[in-house]
Amino acid sequence: MATISRDDAGADILGVLETCLYAENLEECARFYERVVGLEPFSRADGRHVFFRCGPGVFLLFDPARTSRSGGDVPPHGARGPGHVAFSVLPTALEAWRERLAALDVPVEAEVTWPNGGESLYVRDPAGNSVELATPGIWGIPRPG
Amino acid sequence: MATISRDDAGADILGVLETCLYAENLEECARFYERVVGLEPFSRADGRHVFFRCGPGVFLLFDPARTSRSGGDVPPHGARGPGHVAFSVLPTALEAWRERLAALDVPVEAEVTWPNGGESLYVRDPAGNSVELATPGIWGIPRPG
Repeated sequence: MATISRDDAGADILGVLETCLYAENLEECARFYERVVGLEPFSRADGRHVFFRCGPGVFLLFDPARTSRSGGDVPPHGARGPGHVAFSVLPTALEAWRERLAALDVPVEAEVTWPNGGESLYVRDPAGNSVELATPGIWGIPRPG
Repeated sequence: MATISRDDAGADILGVLETCLYAENLEECARFYERVVGLEPFSRADGRHVFFRCGPGVFLLFDPARTSRSGGDVPPHGARGPGHVAFSVLPTALEAWRERLAALDVPVEAEVTWPNGGESLYVRDPAGNSVELATPGIWGIPRPG
């Protein structure tokens, strides 16, 4: 495979625009992202998807039974089994997240303090996806925005 | 399920920190993200993962056969079948992307011009995931960063 350097083409990636997870129990799962994670839904197609604003991009929840069908303008996709996403939270907000999750009866599956700094809390969404609340310092990234 | 407003807890999401896809052909797929998409790998664990920097977050490629095993500090996850990601590109770079993909013999599966503005190019990674190169205007988002 030939390689073209990014500079040759001016074809750079600015960042991730769409992060996706899948849920066969779409509405139950969407309520989790709205009520527990606190994301703002901005688009719904019954039985197909719920889309959320999330920082500089969007977080998309799909029923894979619908999106894996061929046809339409957009190429089919749709994974099964537990995916993973990490959302960025402020270090000063971690205790508030613990309290929030406890108040909402969402069990914390694991907490990790990373060797290079930063901390993560892990929960499961109702579809079984692994959802991490992490301080950006775990990747050496300063607070975004 | 009780609902706690975001303001109550100070527990806000800043954005997506980790976006993940899965590839059983991990190394082949990682080469695609490095050479075609142009992302910078910064962490590799042979047969388990390749991680890439991507704008204000990270893009993580995992072999689900490894990450779906229990044990270790991090909860298991690992989806099968075609996932989806969209990377954000400048509108002025779309033609350069078409040329780059053609030069690298990566077929464009679809191109979509969205009714609210913005354009998307869709390709497949070697694991079958649907990879979109999209201008942030498709979601009404100004250029990030």
